[in-house]
Amino acid sequence: MTPIPRHEIAAILERALVEDLALAGDLTTNALVPADHQSEGRIVAREQGTIAGLDIGLRVFDLIGGTVVAERHVQDGERVSAGTVLATLQGSSRTILSGERTCLNLLGHLSGIATTTASVVDQVAGSGTRVADTRKTTPGLRSLEKYAVRCGGGINHRFGLHDAVMIKDNHLALANSIGEAVSSARAAIGHTVSITVEVDRLDQIEEAIEAGADILLIDNLRGDELRRAVEIVGGRAVTEASGGITPDVAADIAAAGVDIISLGWITHSAPRLDVALDI
Amino acid sequence: MTPIPRHEIAAILERALVEDLALAGDLTTNALVPADHQSEGRIVAREQGTIAGLDIGLRVFDLIGGTVVAERHVQDGERVSAGTVLATLQGSSRTILSGERTCLNLLGHLSGIATTTASVVDQVAGSGTRVADTRKTTPGLRSLEKYAVRCGGGINHRFGLHDAVMIKDNHLALANSIGEAVSSARAAIGHTVSITVEVDRLDQIEEAIEAGADILLIDNLRGDELRRAVEIVGGRAVTEASGGITPDVAADIAAAGVDIISLGWITHSAPRLDVALDI
Amino acid sequence: MTPIPRHEIAAILERALVEDLALAGDLTTNALVPADHQSEGRIVAREQGTIAGLDIGLRVFDLIGGTVVAERHVQDGERVSAGTVLATLQGSSRTILSGERTCLNLLGHLSGIATTTASVVDQVAGSGTRVADTRKTTPGLRSLEKYAVRCGGGINHRFGLHDAVMIKDNHLALANSIGEAVSSARAAIGHTVSITVEVDRLDQIEEAIEAGADILLIDNLRGDELRRAVEIVGGRAVTEASGGITPDVAADIAAAGVDIISLGWITHSAPRLDVALDI
Amino acid sequence: MTPIPRHEIAAILERALVEDLALAGDLTTNALVPADHQSEGRIVAREQGTIAGLDIGLRVFDLIGGTVVAERHVQDGERVSAGTVLATLQGSSRTILSGERTCLNLLGHLSGIATTTASVVDQVAGSGTRVADTRKTTPGLRSLEKYAVRCGGGINHRFGLHDAVMIKDNHLALANSIGEAVSSARAAIGHTVSITVEVDRLDQIEEAIEAGADILLIDNLRGDELRRAVEIVGGRAVTEASGGITPDVAADIAAAGVDIISLGWITHSAPRLDVALDI
Amino acid sequence: MTPIPRHEIAAILERALVEDLALAGDLTTNALVPADHQSEGRIVAREQGTIAGLDIGLRVFDLIGGTVVAERHVQDGERVSAGTVLATLQGSSRTILSGERTCLNLLGHLSGIATTTASVVDQVAGSGTRVADTRKTTPGLRSLEKYAVRCGGGINHRFGLHDAVMIKDNHLALANSIGEAVSSARAAIGHTVSITVEVDRLDQIEEAIEAGADILLIDNLRGDELRRAVEIVGGRAVTEASGGITPDVAADIAAAGVDIISLGWITHSAPRLDVALDI
Amino acid sequence: MTPIPRHEIAAILERALVEDLALAGDLTTNALVPADHQSEGRIVAREQGTIAGLDIGLRVFDLIGGTVVAERHVQDGERVSAGTVLATLQGSSRTILSGERTCLNLLGHLSGIATTTASVVDQVAGSGTRVADTRKTTPGLRSLEKYAVRCGGGINHRFGLHDAVMIKDNHLALANSIGEAVSSARAAIGHTVSITVEVDRLDQIEEAIEAGADILLIDNLRGDELRRAVEIVGGRAVTEASGGITPDVAADIAAAGVDIISLGWITHSAPRLDVALDI
Repeated sequence: MTPIPRHEIAAILERALVEDLALAGDLTTNALVPADHQSEGRIVAREQGTIAGLDIGLRVFDLIGGTVVAERHVQDGERVSAGTVLATLQGSSRTILSGERTCLNLLGHLSGIATTTASVVDQVAGSGTRVADTRKTTPGLRSLEKYAVRCGGGINHRFGLHDAVMIKDNHLALANSIGEAVSSARAAIGHTVSITVEVDRLDQIEEAIEAGADILLIDNLRGDELRRAVEIVGGRAVTEASGGITPDVAADIAAAGVDIISLGWITHSAPRLDVALDI
Repeated sequence: MTPIPRHEIAAILERALVEDLALAGDLTTNALVPADHQSEGRIVAREQGTIAGLDIGLRVFDLIGGTVVAERHVQDGERVSAGTVLATLQGSSRTILSGERTCLNLLGHLSGIATTTASVVDQVAGSGTRVADTRKTTPGLRSLEKYAVRCGGGINHRFGLHDAVMIKDNHLALANSIGEAVSSARAAIGHTVSITVEVDRLDQIEEAIEAGADILLIDNLRGDELRRAVEIVGGRAVTEASGGITPDVAADIAAAGVDIISLGWITHSAPRLDVALDI
Repeated sequence: MTPIPRHEIAAILERALVEDLALAGDLTTNALVPADHQSEGRIVAREQGTIAGLDIGLRVFDLIGGTVVAERHVQDGERVSAGTVLATLQGSSRTILSGERTCLNLLGHLSGIATTTASVVDQVAGSGTRVADTRKTTPGLRSLEKYAVRCGGGINHRFGLHDAVMIKDNHLALANSIGEAVSSARAAIGHTVSITVEVDRLDQIEEAIEAGADILLIDNLRGDELRRAVEIVGGRAVTEASGGITPDVAADIAAAGVDIISLGWITHSAPRLDVALDI
Repeated sequence: MTPIPRHEIAAILERALVEDLALAGDLTTNALVPADHQSEGRIVAREQGTIAGLDIGLRVFDLIGGTVVAERHVQDGERVSAGTVLATLQGSSRTILSGERTCLNLLGHLSGIATTTASVVDQVAGSGTRVADTRKTTPGLRSLEKYAVRCGGGINHRFGLHDAVMIKDNHLALANSIGEAVSSARAAIGHTVSITVEVDRLDQIEEAIEAGADILLIDNLRGDELRRAVEIVGGRAVTEASGGITPDVAADIAAAGVDIISLGWITHSAPRLDVALDI
Repeated sequence: MTPIPRHEIAAILERALVEDLALAGDLTTNALVPADHQSEGRIVAREQGTIAGLDIGLRVFDLIGGTVVAERHVQDGERVSAGTVLATLQGSSRTILSGERTCLNLLGHLSGIATTTASVVDQVAGSGTRVADTRKTTPGLRSLEKYAVRCGGGINHRFGLHDAVMIKDNHLALANSIGEAVSSARAAIGHTVSITVEVDRLDQIEEAIEAGADILLIDNLRGDELRRAVEIVGGRAVTEASGGITPDVAADIAAAGVDIISLGWITHSAPRLDVALDI
Repeated sequence: MTPIPRHEIAAILERALVEDLALAGDLTTNALVPADHQSEGRIVAREQGTIAGLDIGLRVFDLIGGTVVAERHVQDGERVSAGTVLATLQGSSRTILSGERTCLNLLGHLSGIATTTASVVDQVAGSGTRVADTRKTTPGLRSLEKYAVRCGGGINHRFGLHDAVMIKDNHLALANSIGEAVSSARAAIGHTVSITVEVDRLDQIEEAIEAGADILLIDNLRGDELRRAVEIVGGRAVTEASGGITPDVAADIAAAGVDIISLGWITHSAPRLDVALDI
């Protein structure tokens, strides 16, 4: 799994710890647990799912301070059954107790996304269609959530407005034609940047391809109409189906032959995976 | 609704914008939309729900720069039907287009939490029981998510490990008795800090109350056993039911007479409210 | 002593070092002391007092870089006589010389607060009254100064406006009654948050208690009047005396039977403890 | 008065507000005071003194948000009698109440330093001797505390290790001679940087001057010996008396004819000036 | 010109001002210029060139505080002759004097890059070849320097390692073949990300194109060999010439028919444009 | 070489890495190079020059994470011939490849400044004149660029507006006389701060010296006139020649007998030294 840069993880973890510990720290643990007390803990998946964020969650204990040695038993991206021990912790009881919730919040949130992604990937298995995320992510956690999508077997759409062009209906409304819009964009951007054109009617496809779009985002078409769209493209551009897709319709859409399905559902509506720390 | 301090909102929004705009900004909009082009937009709820984060979302446009004037039609905490126009925007097309997704991500996420909270609050209506959140929040967004819970009619549990004592089973395992644990905590903390003791058996209740617990967190008891627990407490401490509570069991638990129900579900598993920006 | 979270110490120390070293570093030491020169130093208390901030001060040398090994001879919270060697340093002369002043500034400031706090604690010894700080702290150093109060045997009042309710005269002036103010506050806050009501007349006490105040802050009453206030409360709430208290009147106030004395004097007017680094 | 750069003030104020308001804000005020309630307040000096930090303190209200208009009645550096109204505030009651303590903590702390400085300046009035601070400042507040010294009529010593060379006994111990130390330093630094040599014996003075020291810091000499030191220097360098100076000995030391008296006491042991906000 | 996001400019300017003003501010100006003194200034190009960074430089004055009104006479991207007045300033003399150097450093540096870029763009005029930058930028200023390249008529290569794939010889050395390397990359990245393959021999071109490379970076080929490379590609991929290109060889390389010339020289070796502020 | 404080280097490197790796990291390397693959690399100077920034550049690999052991073969400040191996790296291939460009950008930029500085130092060798930088540095990199000047054998002028007074023509225009300006400045600043007066006519020199200027910045005088200026000063102040100096006229100016030559050219127009990483 392509890892997340270190500085990015550190920034997120530090903010999470500041939220939880603030200026006074863990009042309960510091009052009740001696500084030199040692414990052993096990991070366990309470339900089956795909793991994401285990290393990231474990770094919480390093940042709190105090020595905790963690042994990982699974890797990010691995599918586990209910009851699987994901990691074993050994060390300062204070550190383990103070870091528990922050570690689990990260691990549960990211594994929830990975698990949901994996379930969509399973739906389209064998079709050749790939599953991509969107920019519908939790503000401040895009790097982690897109990583979790990769852990679940998905691929990442653009990271933001800054690394790819996507010409949507609102942009087209301001241009004379798709062709003009693509030309204007091409003139303004670098040669490494791809251009996606969003179409929601079959008659826009030929114009978009001729204009030089690299990717056609086919919005809200389904069934025969979507199949027809793929035929018209005929391999001359990447085809991406998008727009209100939920896991239950993924297989049908894939069957239409699109290269990519993109859906915000896997990031913005994935329920947390139930993970716990047993001490 | 108690508002969130300004510096906290600014920190979250800045991070969100850095994610999306990075060093190069909105490639598509800057290429296709003239700098002086003006638009009007409407933020609309696509489904019914309780709104949270409208002001916060609108501040995105201020931070991007360019002038956008927003008129709000509802307040945070208000329940709206599908199709309700939440706010009207007028101003720089570039700013509106570049800020759209970040604004909606915040608004959809927070309104999802408010809506889910409100649905639980509805379940317990008339019982006198209040609905509280937990520390199971998205790392980095606790301030916003706890605010969304307030918008949904819930109350906030402690903000972190730093502002209240909660003595859990792991802490009790290290003490000789509940009484000793409460005394040690009381000696270490200030007089404004409350002490919660988690109990999961009826025979622990009397000891916890005698030890001076302010709040009894009754973990995972249900039905008659929970009713019995409330009777034993007899108003001598605040009673809080917790542990794997989902909306469907909330009414039953409230009927047992507890003062508070706390559940992580309203923050970690609330689906996003569908909101959109029509231009 | 409940420790301060690591990130908080790091943030304060980094800012302190930036002030002193800025972009050019220690011009004198770097010009005159070879990079590999080694020294031994001893941190010494030049007067008797209570130590706070020794570990924090020693971390300065780690952050500067270069290897300095420190052996601590006392713990934070310990009372020492004049001449006591608090710690021994061994390592890079450059690091020791460059970090000396920042280390001593922290140690002297915090030990001054601890020493002053301890002197008030001594005054009320045997009375059962505890000594608490206030929010009258140096901007940016509240976490450290409240820690120093704990080192001196005091307890911490609320950390800020965010973690406890305190209804003062200005708030009461805007409410119809104490009862209404307490109810409004209770409705807005979580169940773990305590409510203090400030009273400066005996006739307010009964109303405040009936309204459900957890703590009565009795402002500026002294002698018989204060004793009478404690009697009226009769154990139904925590009693806290406050308002212009200086160490010399502490014993008298404690004799009135209040649970808590809170005074800003121990943070805002504590003279620095004289500490030095002998090389 | 030379003002402090804006970014520096903003950084300090933001940290101070984060301490006090954290993630939840002012619980009491937000619960009890309507968002549109207006108040008038007056910032008053409760005792006589020299003001420093009025503008800085007033900026707190801007940063909190909500509109508060402040009218200043005195300037930083002005001496005021007890009861003087320093500024009048008009605007949002919430903002005034939430910002009150942070504003007063800054104003009281800095005015305390200015007042103490002014009292030393008064002691040496007419002598031609100037009063300077040291690096014995509160970590993180050096910029503000040195500004307060200027408000009190003092001058600033170097801001840190980075902007002037000061060769102390520990540095000399590593050099063969004062002359060699000064030469090494001169070779390493820029031509705009001054060199101070610390001497504690009369026989070091000639050597230091011949070596080219710009300033002689005469450590711990008093009375005739100090007078003799000034004579030996004979105007060939700036003379600075330092080392354990308290306000009561300042006049005597000035009478010896030194150019500068520097003392940490005015920053590290200045009691806070009593200021209040009447609403 | 596609603008730079606001937060990015603010971050760079704040750091620049902290460098220059630090804790004490502009000692000279604050000592000699009254706070209410007004001046008029003109920013002038002392030599001909292409302007970049005028708006950014002018924002320096806003951040310092004090009121300065600036009227711009040219736009970024405009070519000017020696002596052209770029902007007129009116307002606080202190602000103008304190911000002068930081403003000019930005404007001179960025205009230097724009001017150098424009000179290369001129060399290849009429050829259809475009001029692109590289990642050889000054650490911390990539956003500004790439903006300056756009002002000079160039286009931006990838912004970093994160937004496009470029397979270089070191990467190829670890793969069995170009085909395998491209496939592995394609499988790991999103569908919006382009793949460039670096080739330095004619016999690699066919393999790279068949593997699906979007862009061929032809390294260090010149003259006939480069022309032959373009022929082999035959429009099936974008062709980019790179490797030690300086302005004097640009025209020859463009004549070979490549789509893009990329050169680090325009960022890392562009001399500053001479700009001044006349008061 | 006086080193740069650690926090300053860390701040610059972190920003540089965020630019290059952002949220997604090195797409190419992570896709193609196994996490445990090891490589050996050599950092080589491709042309002769003076090295600056080797340690700083090597710290890039530490910050990226993954283990890379570096052996340095030269020290900053050393002059090397073309082909010299500056350091050998051994360790994680991913880390080496991901850090390569950021390391080289720093090393090439700083060594370019050191090399240019050294070339000017060579020009004035034997004259006793020293070579100083200015404030014409790249925004955000002043600490590093001034360090590079030291590596090249130059000295540092003031670091900013905050650490030395320089009275320029614009300041003088607001004063009645040079004497008054110097007195006003002296009254406002501390005794460790030096005062430079800029003069551009011979008849200003005597007045400036009598006013007590420590340094005379002689602007734009050349040849006999400059020689005459040095004579008039007669050792009563430091003499500094400045104003549009380029390397080719340095020797002539030094021959006039000035103490210091200061020139912005060595920072703002130094071409990068060609350095590479061979794997």
